[in-house]
Amino acid sequence: MQPARRFPQIRTLMPASDIEALIKLLAKLPGLGPRSARRAALHMIKRRESLMDPLARALAGAAQNIRTCSECGNLDTLDPCALCSDGRRDGSMICVVEEVADLWAMERGGAFKGLYHVLGGTLSALDGIGPEDLNIASLIRRIEAGNISEVILATNATVDGQTTGHYITDRLAPTNVTVSRLAHGVPVGGELDYLDDGTLAAALKSRRPV
Amino acid sequence: MQPARRFPQIRTLMPASDIEALIKLLAKLPGLGPRSARRAALHMIKRRESLMDPLARALAGAAQNIRTCSECGNLDTLDPCALCSDGRRDGSMICVVEEVADLWAMERGGAFKGLYHVLGGTLSALDGIGPEDLNIASLIRRIEAGNISEVILATNATVDGQTTGHYITDRLAPTNVTVSRLAHGVPVGGELDYLDDGTLAAALKSRRPV
Repeated sequence: MQPARRFPQIRTLMPASDIEALIKLLAKLPGLGPRSARRAALHMIKRRESLMDPLARALAGAAQNIRTCSECGNLDTLDPCALCSDGRRDGSMICVVEEVADLWAMERGGAFKGLYHVLGGTLSALDGIGPEDLNIASLIRRIEAGNISEVILATNATVDGQTTGHYITDRLAPTNVTVSRLAHGVPVGGELDYLDDGTLAAALKSRRPV
Repeated sequence: MQPARRFPQIRTLMPASDIEALIKLLAKLPGLGPRSARRAALHMIKRRESLMDPLARALAGAAQNIRTCSECGNLDTLDPCALCSDGRRDGSMICVVEEVADLWAMERGGAFKGLYHVLGGTLSALDGIGPEDLNIASLIRRIEAGNISEVILATNATVDGQTTGHYITDRLAPTNVTVSRLAHGVPVGGELDYLDDGTLAAALKSRRPV
């Protein structure tokens, strides 16, 4: 770059510190880099009443009100959460998921009417995450305490997710509870040509009579 | 989808309303859809002290403090902005840009030491944006008022950007000011093989003796 000879002391830092601070924080969100954080900041500054003020209030409100359910690990304004305290749900089934996002995904599907348990991650030797770092002890307590008849493992179909599932299966062996896991197979609406070989093999192995 | 026969009245709405409101607002940001907004919300809830609270404060602070410079249209906590009131900058040159983001891009480059003028968009017949919707009248006023010797058009190299540039050139014809525009050519570090034909043709046409 050509040195600015005529105006040697000029600072070329921009934007103003308030915007700079905002951009730096926005860039920490997943899916936003420095460039898209700048774009998001300008977008908000243009829409102060309709977006920036409401978002500031929503963030402050959520930061104050959202808590982790002491029973299942879900996030809600209530503790126990709305799911755990909903008497109409089937209290004999617990679906074990890795993260709250997975719980939301299950609920969007709407096919499961039991209770949940959020592990808060997966076992990972590489990242040094052991059983004591996850909500596994509380899962065992819930099962030992009550009338749970089935635990459905809905951890991700990744190596870490499946390892975690196996570990929980082992830990639950002494209890009388039935342990099941989500089926592997062809996604509904999916085309065979685009499927990986592992999924195809699993779908073939688990084929069902028509 | 299978109807939930056993529990007909169960609501399957999740997440809690506070998180829901936050996600809806986040999804309005450019670059974030519903899925990435959910991910961002969960990411923040996990990092309440380090990210969520600071971001809420930064948003509220920026919403309160940031204003548009009445001189050039830049965003700053001051009016006139730090650039306009910096006596070390060359007050005889004005660089005309479409948006504040373009001004930031120019400042990051650090090659320009004059003043700016932010149009706030481009002329667009399709979107019904005419000259009165942009900060063009204030640009004319600035040039008529003072010692401006050169106006550099740095609108985008798009159809709308170039149209806007032509329009401003016409409007400035009665004044004595020199009007220039950014050069077209091969980006520094760019490979010819990946360039579009229009850019290559422009670079060839504007070739310079070595």
